[in-house]
Amino acid sequence: MDSIAERLADKQKEISVGEFFERNKHILGFDSLTKALVTAVKEGVDNSLDSCEEAGILPDIKVVIREVDDEEYRVSVEDNGPGIPKRKIPDVFGKLLYGSRFHEIRQSRGQQGIGVSAVVMYGQLTTGKPTLVRSKVKEKDYAQEMKITLDTKKNEPDVLSKEVVLWEDKEHGTLFETTIRGLLRSGKHSVFEYLKNTAIVNPHARITYVRNGDTTVFKRATDQLPGKTKAVKPHIEGIELGTFAKMAKNSDRRKLVSFLVNDFSRISYNTARDICEEAGIEEEMKPRDLDVESCKKLLKATKNVKIMAPKTDCLSPIKSMLIKKGLKNVLKGYRPEFYAPPITRDPEVASGNPFQVEVGLVYGGDLPSDGPVRVLRFANRVPLMYKKGGCATTTAIQQIDWRIYGLDQKGGSGMPRGPVIILIHVASTRVPFTSEAKEAIADIPVIVDEIERGLRECARELRTHLNKKEKRKKVSKKFMIVKDILPMIAEKSASIVGKETPSLDKVMTNIMGVVYIDKKMEWNNGAAEGIIEIMNYTSKEREMSLFIEKPYPETELLDSSREPEHDGDYIEWKLEKLKPSKTSKIKFKFSNLDKEDIDGTDVFIDGVNETHLIGAEPLPDDWGVELADIHEED
Amino acid sequence: MDSIAERLADKQKEISVGEFFERNKHILGFDSLTKALVTAVKEGVDNSLDSCEEAGILPDIKVVIREVDDEEYRVSVEDNGPGIPKRKIPDVFGKLLYGSRFHEIRQSRGQQGIGVSAVVMYGQLTTGKPTLVRSKVKEKDYAQEMKITLDTKKNEPDVLSKEVVLWEDKEHGTLFETTIRGLLRSGKHSVFEYLKNTAIVNPHARITYVRNGDTTVFKRATDQLPGKTKAVKPHIEGIELGTFAKMAKNSDRRKLVSFLVNDFSRISYNTARDICEEAGIEEEMKPRDLDVESCKKLLKATKNVKIMAPKTDCLSPIKSMLIKKGLKNVLKGYRPEFYAPPITRDPEVASGNPFQVEVGLVYGGDLPSDGPVRVLRFANRVPLMYKKGGCATTTAIQQIDWRIYGLDQKGGSGMPRGPVIILIHVASTRVPFTSEAKEAIADIPVIVDEIERGLRECARELRTHLNKKEKRKKVSKKFMIVKDILPMIAEKSASIVGKETPSLDKVMTNIMGVVYIDKKMEWNNGAAEGIIEIMNYTSKEREMSLFIEKPYPETELLDSSREPEHDGDYIEWKLEKLKPSKTSKIKFKFSNLDKEDIDGTDVFIDGVNETHLIGAEPLPDDWGVELADIHEED
Repeated sequence: MDSIAERLADKQKEISVGEFFERNKHILGFDSLTKALVTAVKEGVDNSLDSCEEAGILPDIKVVIREVDDEEYRVSVEDNGPGIPKRKIPDVFGKLLYGSRFHEIRQSRGQQGIGVSAVVMYGQLTTGKPTLVRSKVKEKDYAQEMKITLDTKKNEPDVLSKEVVLWEDKEHGTLFETTIRGLLRSGKHSVFEYLKNTAIVNPHARITYVRNGDTTVFKRATDQLPGKTKAVKPHIEGIELGTFAKMAKNSDRRKLVSFLVNDFSRISYNTARDICEEAGIEEEMKPRDLDVESCKKLLKATKNVKIMAPKTDCLSPIKSMLIKKGLKNVLKGYRPEFYAPPITRDPEVASGNPFQVEVGLVYGGDLPSDGPVRVLRFANRVPLMYKKGGCATTTAIQQIDWRIYGLDQKGGSGMPRGPVIILIHVASTRVPFTSEAKEAIADIPVIVDEIERGLRECARELRTHLNKKEKRKKVSKKFMIVKDILPMIAEKSASIVGKETPSLDKVMTNIMGVVYIDKKMEWNNGAAEGIIEIMNYTSKEREMSLFIEKPYPETELLDSSREPEHDGDYIEWKLEKLKPSKTSKIKFKFSNLDKEDIDGTDVFIDGVNETHLIGAEPLPDDWGVELADIHEED
Repeated sequence: MDSIAERLADKQKEISVGEFFERNKHILGFDSLTKALVTAVKEGVDNSLDSCEEAGILPDIKVVIREVDDEEYRVSVEDNGPGIPKRKIPDVFGKLLYGSRFHEIRQSRGQQGIGVSAVVMYGQLTTGKPTLVRSKVKEKDYAQEMKITLDTKKNEPDVLSKEVVLWEDKEHGTLFETTIRGLLRSGKHSVFEYLKNTAIVNPHARITYVRNGDTTVFKRATDQLPGKTKAVKPHIEGIELGTFAKMAKNSDRRKLVSFLVNDFSRISYNTARDICEEAGIEEEMKPRDLDVESCKKLLKATKNVKIMAPKTDCLSPIKSMLIKKGLKNVLKGYRPEFYAPPITRDPEVASGNPFQVEVGLVYGGDLPSDGPVRVLRFANRVPLMYKKGGCATTTAIQQIDWRIYGLDQKGGSGMPRGPVIILIHVASTRVPFTSEAKEAIADIPVIVDEIERGLRECARELRTHLNKKEKRKKVSKKFMIVKDILPMIAEKSASIVGKETPSLDKVMTNIMGVVYIDKKMEWNNGAAEGIIEIMNYTSKEREMSLFIEKPYPETELLDSSREPEHDGDYIEWKLEKLKPSKTSKIKFKFSNLDKEDIDGTDVFIDGVNETHLIGAEPLPDDWGVELADIHEED
């Protein structure tokens, strides 16, 4: 029979996954030559960070890009991760849809098992060259080296060569090197920008970037690894009817209640019974006997039964202090005048997936002040570089009237303008990206709301800062005038009446009512020498603590005129009994600090009401230090 | 060994295609409840149109949507296509990445082999219900009916039931019915809008839409099927190095020249030799012996050798007249005053893929005039409903200064405003969509340029129309005044001098110099009765042809006071020797016409210079009629 139907039917064939993604490379982030390089680096770095963290290793990652021909680059990513055992190397790099995190419900960067194999595929597609992979696990004295391509027809790796090599100075780690067609650009959408932003939200990582021989190092700002995330069971709130029915059908549990209690998260035995009762379904029945209608009733019933929100140990937010460290570490060149204490919101739930929003805001200094604010967007600690317009973060920013927080904004909507950088991080077990290239977060109302709330919290801090700045500018002006003019008047008066010039400290104290802190730092023979003067121009004896943050974990306190109370991530000095009108000095020396960093170390004070403080900031409450209880009037 | 590397490696697993797409359903167009319904209908209708056209059948498609529960709808799509043989039904509906058009280079709606299986998967995921498929091929007396689900773990169909049923009144065709979670909305992003727009660019299709019992029929506007497209070989211009190297390696050809001539399109034997010479590679060598470097040289060489552009019989544009018919058919309710002759641009090439741009523009009448112009976007005859902002069509519109063409536009950029609908159709063997959900066309410069050129052609016609309208408004005003006042003056003068009122036709003729056409239509006992009066107020004897378009293929001319010269898609009457100052009348009767359509039939005239025409339009030059050669002065 050769009918039309038969003829058309004979053309129906299976299409291989490899061929599908080869043709649709744009949905994997390879839609332009510039983006191709960013994507290749991103997939490598995501994998390195994920595996280091899972293995409890502080990541040390090196990215090298070199132009080898017109529009052709050799890209390599090297890490100090646990390494990949020989037998798994081909599949990890040469097979699409192969990975470890697809079936787990917890926060991680890569989840789909496509990333790095897509880079291998794109490389061979555009330059015809295989990818070189080298990996060493701790237990072996040598590394494995393979040249790999991806057979797109079969979606299987082709190993072209296998070798055992020595990898000196490397205890464990993985390196891959691919040659791809691309275009290396600078600016907003560059590899540099991607790595810089990665460093901000991963302050525990050390990232080295070598670009045609030029090296940039993003130093580690903390030795603290992110909290490990735990895989959780699905939460019933977000489950689709079909998935629920399938789970029930495949379940070995003998009773419906135990199916509900054991195969879902946060359902207690009592809750499970309530659900069955509400649905009018026998709790003792076998889950695999449930028909679709019963499943539907059960899911409907969950809406009327109180079920605990999902556990959040599957999430690993960056946390306020580290966001600030990360921002400071990378933005110090701009010398911003104000870092709003970053906000880590409580976890929320979107369709059964827990998520958590973090927001940071940096203001002033040398940040460009004549354009729209800059936004750094992140999902699960990965920078989002493209499709800003269609992202939940942009929606949230634009629906706030920023004028009430002291920023410029046309008509009270759209992008505000001014010397501001806003950081937004959304962590989730399932970030709802708008596409597989993971470029923008979908406008889910509950997520947009959370982002907006975080933004408003930061914005209120900004408003307070701007108000205080105005107020302290006035106090400071008064203080400077009094400090300069009063002695002159005293001297003049004394000389007229022929008496000795009186001490003015008491008078100053009565007029001013402030604690004045003056910090100077100098660069001396490779070390940073600092001196902090604390003048008590208030009428009370003062007890206080001084804090300085160390810019890097490797920064060391070499010398200090006063024994510090604490010497770790930060230095704390206690100052007891500083009498009215008295001055105290602390001298100290730091090693392992870059020359350009010495101005970045702010002084924070605990024990003095901030309205009485000039020249220092009150200690933020996220340092893990128990704050003094201050009761004073302004 | 239980090292960390081993432990992590053991978690690496293969991920099934089904599970991948189940999780990433948003990239298949299932990212909101409203969109889910549109996507389900779209995938069905795309398939039906494609298969009808391949089989040379005028499509007759019926879409039925019924709400069966809260947020749950039963959706069915039925066609009169060739049907699917029994053995192929399960795979076509229950297996992702299975299709007939993936490996062919030619214009078609569906290409990836995902569409309708994704609907089956989404249905079972959200409602737990299988999809019912019924299909009948011409050779059988009965239809096959199956209930199908998709086993996402294996990406294989599960056939739950198989039955043989009678399908009365159906010679051949396919029907599927799925129950899905969704939300039926009206407005811009509705199923209705999608079907309406589909009808515009597929005037050869009859589409019936039943929505909760309410029926709308989009009638066929032509019986002419689109030209069949031919599959072509790849064009060397757009081929990636890796693909070329793979083709060479797998080639059985014995010589490089014959590989180039036979495995690519548009390379002659001489061109192939030129390429080899330019690349410095022996033309007699075996293609499978080429290394990557040689492949690179060959591809580089093609840039310096003139190669013919790809053949374009793989494309099937709608063509100007049918675009107009499609627009008229669907937009008649707005009674637009002007349809710019739609533009079908010559084919161009983007990365080796031929593409062709078509543009239409409709102006005035009851189209809303107070907002931005409306844009109907299409790719390969499929409406694009989402992501307007990121689409090449929008970029092209916004970069034109529409003020010079007579439209309102703030600052000469952005969206113009006014009572305008713009239609843009991009046909290609590979439309560069920005995502798998096929919602927007990527901003490829050569495509944006072509769209802009098409838009400008239409815009110039609009400007000419608006100018002429202004001019004819003046002539018409003069004509009316003269027609009314002259007889009064004549009568008065005659009565004063006591003479008979003279005939003024001659005078009028001398003053006016126009042919005046007056068309009236009336609804009478289920038929449309028309009368056209033609008055020759020029000084010459006139010979002309009158044309009326039939709104539908089934419209019939029942009666005509003058024998028509042509009675087909349009009616033509010839008018010979209409003397100056004389009037002629044509009466006619139409059947199978809706009452609301009777005003839509314009009269077109050939043989009279348009500046001498009042009450009718000159015949456009795309009717396939040989136009009279008019030499007259204004």
